Amino acid sequence: MGTEIERKFLVKDDGWRGEITASRHLRQAYLAQTPALTLRVRIVDEEQATMNLKSSQSGIARQEFEYAIPLEDARALMALALGRPVVKRRHIVAAGALAWEIDVFEGDHAGLILAEIELPHAEADFPRPAWLGDEVTDDPRYYNAALAGLSGAAGT
Amino acid sequence: MGTEIERKFLVKDDGWRGEITASRHLRQAYLAQTPALTLRVRIVDEEQATMNLKSSQSGIARQEFEYAIPLEDARALMALALGRPVVKRRHIVAAGALAWEIDVFEGDHAGLILAEIELPHAEADFPRPAWLGDEVTDDPRYYNAALAGLSGAAGT
Repeated sequence: MGTEIERKFLVKDDGWRGEITASRHLRQAYLAQTPALTLRVRIVDEEQATMNLKSSQSGIARQEFEYAIPLEDARALMALALGRPVVKRRHIVAAGALAWEIDVFEGDHAGLILAEIELPHAEADFPRPAWLGDEVTDDPRYYNAALAGLSGAAGT
Repeated sequence: MGTEIERKFLVKDDGWRGEITASRHLRQAYLAQTPALTLRVRIVDEEQATMNLKSSQSGIARQEFEYAIPLEDARALMALALGRPVVKRRHIVAAGALAWEIDVFEGDHAGLILAEIELPHAEADFPRPAWLGDEVTDDPRYYNAALAGLSGAAGT
């Protein structure tokens, strides 16, 4: 269990591509969404899988629970999902002691690129590289749940 | 992941109490319910915890996925539940090669006792002890989700 503070941005250009330190492919889907939480299943590089629960409390901070599950379970659970799976390649770019996660979407959202940073506390300072675009942390159109085609989306 | 076939009955009397081979205390709650699945968290003897996903497909057989999770996570997740927690003591009574699970409910449902048997296939034969009452497998009033105060309950 952890409490996460995340901020999310558009990107202006491909300046970040020279700075990639790691990449992985993600396929994820929402299994459930209630007033209190969202439940997501994620397959990484078609090799590993996790189940992820996030509380829906308002504000930037929320509780998160993540558990490794067998890959075959995750594939079966994908068939029980709400909305549609979100597929993307996630690139890691260093940001001082922190890191940018830059998601390049595939499938229905091909062309969309989002940069996200997880902060140790809500007022934490972080680098603003030249490629960083407008902040969309609180823009419901860019919530993961919205990208999965769910309404009343609570998860970022 | 497994496919379970369960039948559920009322009990006529306390004849089963002399046959108990094991008992444990269960506190469980629904975290989510969708057209496709239910998600439940369970705390056993206030010592161990699991997260359980069941598919909602119609009929007696359904998919089930269960994962151990940290006790402190389960306690935090209980606060995010739908409906109200169901609290009961579960007693195991041998039934030949099979076993009865006899649930003695506490709290809101004090007085209710249900006997459940998991079968290897839908037509499997099983003992019918003298204490066994009416079958309620398909009675929505006795679905676990209904006992938790959820409507449109799909989980038995």
